This record gives sequence, C-alpha cells and structure tokens, in this order.
Amino acid sequence: MSKKAVVLLSGGMDSATTLFMAKERGYKCIALIFDYGQRNRREIKSAKNVAKKAGCPYILAKVTLPRKGSSLLDPRIRIPKGRKRKAIPSTYVPARNTVMLSIALSYAESMRAHYIFIGAHTEDYSGYPDCRPGYFKAFNNVKNIGTKLGTKIKILTPLLNKSKSEIIIKGLQLGVPYRMTWSCYKGGLRPCGECDSCYYRRKGFRKAGVKDPL
Amino acid sequence: MSKKAVVLLSGGMDSATTLFMAKERGYKCIALIFDYGQRNRREIKSAKNVAKKAGCPYILAKVTLPRKGSSLLDPRIRIPKGRKRKAIPSTYVPARNTVMLSIALSYAESMRAHYIFIGAHTEDYSGYPDCRPGYFKAFNNVKNIGTKLGTKIKILTPLLNKSKSEIIIKGLQLGVPYRMTWSCYKGGLRPCGECDSCYYRRKGFRKAGVKDPL
Repeated sequence: MSKKAVVLLSGGMDSATTLFMAKERGYKCIALIFDYGQRNRREIKSAKNVAKKAGCPYILAKVTLPRKGSSLLDPRIRIPKGRKRKAIPSTYVPARNTVMLSIALSYAESMRAHYIFIGAHTEDYSGYPDCRPGYFKAFNNVKNIGTKLGTKIKILTPLLNKSKSEIIIKGLQLGVPYRMTWSCYKGGLRPCGECDSCYYRRKGFRKAGVKDPL
Repeated sequence: MSKKAVVLLSGGMDSATTLFMAKERGYKCIALIFDYGQRNRREIKSAKNVAKKAGCPYILAKVTLPRKGSSLLDPRIRIPKGRKRKAIPSTYVPARNTVMLSIALSYAESMRAHYIFIGAHTEDYSGYPDCRPGYFKAFNNVKNIGTKLGTKIKILTPLLNKSKSEIIIKGLQLGVPYRMTWSCYKGGLRPCGECDSCYYRRKGFRKAGVKDPL
C-alpha cells in the first residue's frame, strides 16, 4: 500500500501541524486547500505558504457554500468577540467538515491515496458538531460503503484528543512554521486578538510557554 | 416544521422526476445544481430548464473535483459503449454523492430547510457504491451527528427501489418535461444512444410503453 496521503490544510495551526506530523511519519503528502468563500482570504495564502514550506504539492479546491448563517462567510454577521461558548457559535459553517472530507475522499480515491489527514480536535472546539469523535466514526462508515476503495482508505485525526498547547509543543519540535499560519477569523492585516480563534491561539502558546512568532 | 426542501437536480430524468414528486407532496423546493467539471455541460443547462419549468428557484454550486480516473470528467478516458456491467464502471465519479449530499446539507442547514431530496435508485445503477440503501443510512448518521439541525433534517430518496420504467410512468403522470432532460453521458448535440445512460433511458421508455420525447 502506498503511503500517499491527502492532508486537509486550512492555513491555521492545527492543519499545519498535522501536515508536518504526516510528513514525519513518512507519508507522501498532497495538501488540499479550500476556497469556500471564506471572508478570511488570508488563510488561503497561509495554507499555500505552509504547503510550500513543507515541500508538498497542493490542490486548491473551490466549492460554493451558502453564505447565510455563518459569520465566517456572511459579512453581515459580526464575528463574536471574546469567548462565549454556549451552544454552537456563529462561526460554525454548516456541514463544513463533511464537505471537505468528501472532496478529500474524492481526491484520495482518484489518485489512489490510501490516507486522509484532518487536523480536527475536540478540546477547544467542542462547539462544532463535526469535530466530535463520533462524527468521524460516522463519516468513516460513509467512506467504507460509498466508495470504490472503501476500507482501503483510512481517515487519520492525529490531533483529535490533543490540547492546543500539546499541538504547539509537538509542532515546534517538527519545525512547523507557525509564523506563516493564520488563525484569526478576521482576515485583517494583523490578528484581531479578540475572536475565539485568536483566544485559543494565545492561550495555547501561553500554556506551551512559548512566544507566538506571528 | 417548514416544508422547505433542497432537491438535487442533475438534468437527468431521475432527479427531474424527484423534483416533481417533491412538489406534488407539497414541498417548497429549491433545486441544487452542480457544476463539478463534468464533460457533459449540457446537463447543467437541462437542469436549469427543468427547475424553471417546475417554477423552482435554483442554486448552481461549483465544486472542484479530480478529473483523473472518471470518464465523466477526464476527456482522455472513453465513455464505455454498450452495457458491460462488471464491477464499478469508469463513469463512477469518486465520492460524488457524498460531495453533493454534503453541500446539500450545508444549504439545507443554512436556509433551515428540513428536507433533502435525492433521486438515486438502485436498480439500474447497482454499479455505484454511493447509490446503495446502506450508503444513505450511513450518510444519515453523519448528518445526525455532524450538523446543528441533526435529526431535524431528513434525507428522502423516493426513487430508491423504483425501476426506470416505474419512474417514467410516475413522471408522466406528474408532467415531468422529459424532453428537457438529458441523460447521455456525452454532452453532444444528440444522445449517443450507446452509453449506459442512453441504454437505460431507452429501456425504461420501452418498458413503460411510451415514446421518448427527446
């Protein structure tokens, strides 16, 4: 079995770390970057830079998703400040991981890659239903039944039970270029420092005892 | 619960019939048409015409899928003539139904539509793994766990156990404009008459005892 892997790459810290972990484990990685109309256009550029730094080819897949209802897509909805995590936040993009995993599955099957890596984790983003372990188990069944290669393709989630600081510590050992990554939900010139994603990034670096290079 | 429904519309006979069945049952339908780089560009136009004829708004969603390996996408692969159905045919597009259903799910959730219709059926296309009843059951779990609305969204497959001729008979009762639909895998000026899809269309009309208006 070839060790070819499709790695979902968003431009953020988690997927960048996942890419470097996959490389460390000897996988021949192809990064899959999505343009789904996200307001934060900067993360696409970051993802490309991270792929180049890792020496991996990348695919930029475009997909039309509905703008309505998600603050990551709809400029009329304000990205929430601070960290009020009751229920599912407005930054939730409906079915995003399912869309991304299914496109990754299509590419993996087409290029006969037997592995898909996704850098989802549960600790910080428990607000997203499509980051739960049970979700990946369910998607796994879809993959097994609904494709030609079926069980021959594995979906790997190496960060699933890791905390942000553990991810950062691991990533620094592997030389992940965190200065190239972009976490802020707003695509400004500098991170806003106020959104959920900035909050978790700052907290992660603080707990890891390291300065954020960004 | 609103009776708003997202209906996957390909431009072929099955999805057109599904749309008219959903309308008959009183659903307020929004057609979802995909441009996934299919060689057969004509079906996109057909889908738009069918939606207009049904009086339904439509969304055209673009999605980048891999060309390699599928004769519906890769012009270097010949679309098979005749009907040699051993294993999965080259017209299989990896994970296509999973990609389409996941985008439909994203739209349904965004617009708070509680129903998704897909015109898949098992009889003729048993070669496609993502048309099997077990596949839809598995995708259902993904939907239930991986979205905000979860079990509040239903995926309906009214054609699943119907034969092509049953579909046609039902469609004619409902006034489905079959002359507007396009089945041929090749996007030529006239149906090739030789591909799988032309074969099943012809066979369906013959069994239904009706002349194909196309």
